[in-house]
Amino acid sequence: MDYQQFIDAQIAEFKKTVGSALAINALSGGVDSSVVTALAHRALGDQLKTFFIDSGLMRRDEPQRVVRIFADMKIPVALIDARAEFLAALKGLTDPEEKRNAITNTFYAQVFARLVKQTGAKFLLHGTILTDIEETVAGIKRQHNILSQVGIDTQQAYGYAVLEPLKTLRKDGVREVGKLLKLPDEITHRIPFPGPALATRIVGEVTQERLDTVRAATAIVEEELADSDAFQYFAVLLNDRATGIRNNKREFGQIIVVRCIESTDARTAETTRLDWKKLDRICQRIIQIKGVNRCLYDLTAKPPATIEYV
Amino acid sequence: MDYQQFIDAQIAEFKKTVGSALAINALSGGVDSSVVTALAHRALGDQLKTFFIDSGLMRRDEPQRVVRIFADMKIPVALIDARAEFLAALKGLTDPEEKRNAITNTFYAQVFARLVKQTGAKFLLHGTILTDIEETVAGIKRQHNILSQVGIDTQQAYGYAVLEPLKTLRKDGVREVGKLLKLPDEITHRIPFPGPALATRIVGEVTQERLDTVRAATAIVEEELADSDAFQYFAVLLNDRATGIRNNKREFGQIIVVRCIESTDARTAETTRLDWKKLDRICQRIIQIKGVNRCLYDLTAKPPATIEYV
Repeated sequence: MDYQQFIDAQIAEFKKTVGSALAINALSGGVDSSVVTALAHRALGDQLKTFFIDSGLMRRDEPQRVVRIFADMKIPVALIDARAEFLAALKGLTDPEEKRNAITNTFYAQVFARLVKQTGAKFLLHGTILTDIEETVAGIKRQHNILSQVGIDTQQAYGYAVLEPLKTLRKDGVREVGKLLKLPDEITHRIPFPGPALATRIVGEVTQERLDTVRAATAIVEEELADSDAFQYFAVLLNDRATGIRNNKREFGQIIVVRCIESTDARTAETTRLDWKKLDRICQRIIQIKGVNRCLYDLTAKPPATIEYV
Repeated sequence: MDYQQFIDAQIAEFKKTVGSALAINALSGGVDSSVVTALAHRALGDQLKTFFIDSGLMRRDEPQRVVRIFADMKIPVALIDARAEFLAALKGLTDPEEKRNAITNTFYAQVFARLVKQTGAKFLLHGTILTDIEETVAGIKRQHNILSQVGIDTQQAYGYAVLEPLKTLRKDGVREVGKLLKLPDEITHRIPFPGPALATRIVGEVTQERLDTVRAATAIVEEELADSDAFQYFAVLLNDRATGIRNNKREFGQIIVVRCIESTDARTAETTRLDWKKLDRICQRIIQIKGVNRCLYDLTAKPPATIEYV
């Protein structure tokens, strides 16, 4: 595929479709939404308003870091603090589907609906890629950014039209487009991070305390595996607890799973055969997190596992 | 320590304490209860009645296998089918302490109380070792065979006195005594298996279906790691579930944890650095078990984890 031709075609398409209207998009800092932002900014300039929604589900320092990266590229991004709103919507939910639905609903029907109203935008740009559509349509996983494909009429439901410029690409193609758009390596080589963010790395209820736990574990795993060539690596907080001993006393502790995989397009994945010294070091650091006394490594390929747990 | 001297002293002690009365004991096939059985049989002959209680929590084919091993040594063992009784006692319980208590109670107050009554035995022999006592007294773990040390007067509660000939030994010492008593390698080299058996390898409720799942996983792990020199290896069924894909459809599957450790006395333990091909093969076999779509490897040392999960 000729990715420069793809870029030119998408820019022409944006100009034609949006005309003199306003478009908005949500930037997460992942390669998909970053490419959409850079592509649409090139086509629309000031007619694009980009928002970073801080859901409280992001990784450590992520909102500030992403806004800074785009400021360096002269692309303005507005940071919206919606942390309390997301936490309230997730309260008491343990079912994965209900959690995903609560996030989708808070994101689009609450926070984004307000931004659309405030800005008067007629178009919302999504970083949907082909794998997202395929997996949602197949019923494997409900990607939070898939709406029309599951029968949601955004015009009627939320008051805006959705444009999905990357929906014919897979992850590797998106990275190629990102390079041509001169996005920094920090973005194009960023490991995939799901839309519902750390909520997909918490089995059971999402609370402030549990978010803090999985955020700390995620920071350790990302730091330790930054120099690996793995496709994706992360930490998951289970709901189960296991017995342990701390200071000679019984403790009923939390369990963190480390997952690190090799993949090219996220459709299938193999477990990375990490060095034992590295695994041991990760485990040693993770069990220092308050309340955590077990660290497990996921051995399972996709299929039959998915990459994420929720 | 001179283990032959230990054996001679214990035999003399048995003869003096039991006199012309009857003693009974429960044999699980583990090295502790096997050594107690062989030691007491040498001291007491027909005055010892040994029972294998089939709680339904044992590993695949274990009850029949253990009875056969002791028959080969001319030590008679009566097999008691108490499967329905244990399953009924465990129904609805998810708290680890409640599960252990239900097993202890069914074992001693129900099944053994009946056997004591039927046989007229005045003494019950236990395979308690020093580590069991230390950990129970320290509040780390309630070993199901620790009674007097936590304030239970067995004479008053169950109608018999408890003798614990191995309570000054650790696991390595028990193995030495077993060798001197000419127990087969199959017994002295058997990996440790806890009293509450597979119930300690199930996080959440113990049901027939969940027992079948963890029993199948245990058989795979033991078969694959039989030629390893590890101290202990087993499978744990978590209560949490994770998303997966099977035949292109979303599946909310069960999670098996594989644990394999190096230790000399179970007081501390390190994770075995298994060969990746072996881990991959174990995982490939475990995800063939009905309803299981994840296989994890426990990286955690003891402390801060314990060896078992429940």
